[in-house]
Amino acid sequence: MQALKERILREGKNLGDGILKVDGFINHQVDPVLMDSCGVELARRFKNVAATKILTAEISGIAPALTTAMHLGLPVVYARKNKPITMPDQVFLTLTPSHTKGRMVELIVSPEYLSRGERVLIIDDFLATGATILGLVRLAQTGGATIVGIGTLIEKVFEGGRAALAHLNVPVESLALISAMHGDQIVFED
Amino acid sequence: MQALKERILREGKNLGDGILKVDGFINHQVDPVLMDSCGVELARRFKNVAATKILTAEISGIAPALTTAMHLGLPVVYARKNKPITMPDQVFLTLTPSHTKGRMVELIVSPEYLSRGERVLIIDDFLATGATILGLVRLAQTGGATIVGIGTLIEKVFEGGRAALAHLNVPVESLALISAMHGDQIVFED
Repeated sequence: MQALKERILREGKNLGDGILKVDGFINHQVDPVLMDSCGVELARRFKNVAATKILTAEISGIAPALTTAMHLGLPVVYARKNKPITMPDQVFLTLTPSHTKGRMVELIVSPEYLSRGERVLIIDDFLATGATILGLVRLAQTGGATIVGIGTLIEKVFEGGRAALAHLNVPVESLALISAMHGDQIVFED
Repeated sequence: MQALKERILREGKNLGDGILKVDGFINHQVDPVLMDSCGVELARRFKNVAATKILTAEISGIAPALTTAMHLGLPVVYARKNKPITMPDQVFLTLTPSHTKGRMVELIVSPEYLSRGERVLIIDDFLATGATILGLVRLAQTGGATIVGIGTLIEKVFEGGRAALAHLNVPVESLALISAMHGDQIVFED
């Protein structure tokens, strides 16, 4: 998506070690106009997968999942990283490595909002190694749901996440695919 | 706001100890249509305060802050509870008590996105004791910004947050004001 790529080129910062800082419009400050446009585009790409629910992970997945959900007219569930006291005692929980935290984190969904037969579209901000998304896949499958698609804003192609998701046989769509980052230079695929 | 009150009556659960569970449409699963309507209404109530930025706290503040931001055309910053590695070493940080966690939590904003002269509208999901919102106020004021308004989805009037915010002399708007919760009964103000 051109608007997202241009914004990454203008404001994104390669911090080294594969970390792309986009805190000015996605991960700390959010540009709601750009985020809505991303939601429109993700909704367009997944309009034919017959999803019944969108699943994402807190925190940075919430904004793109919400704008996509608005344009598909679907509820969105965000997996929690800490179990709040409002959740039932029995939950779906999985562990996933966090690159930015350097340790394993929990992803937790209440069975109340993930039912057998649900058709789940996963939306997140980044596709890197695919570890977080595979955690969401495990949660959905444990609940008896079917994964019907995976969409992200930014894919770091060089981290191999797409190959890690290939066995799912579902469409994987990213709005900006980054093939390499060298110093100040961010290179998009094609 | 009628649609929000009706949803609270239909699906909200009083868990006791002042805890209202609205995980089915706000705090875990989000209804994007309702959340967008709430954003429209909050934007309407604050259209004349000349805000330049919306400030909220992760996690559950993000959805209402984003939909309000979309309708006011303003960027939204969400205070983080853990400092990500993409943030600079020097940040604005304050501590605030978390009722649902039973301990103090950090609220952190990068100085990159909170500037002197900024006119800040604070949006959050709940107004209870006002502690989290007062934490956001301290962060904004430390950055040299001015608070111009405070808006929330649900106010638990019996927890006294409105009085705690009165010294700020800014409009405080909530879309559903709950004056009491007795067993299964949730009572709205007026």
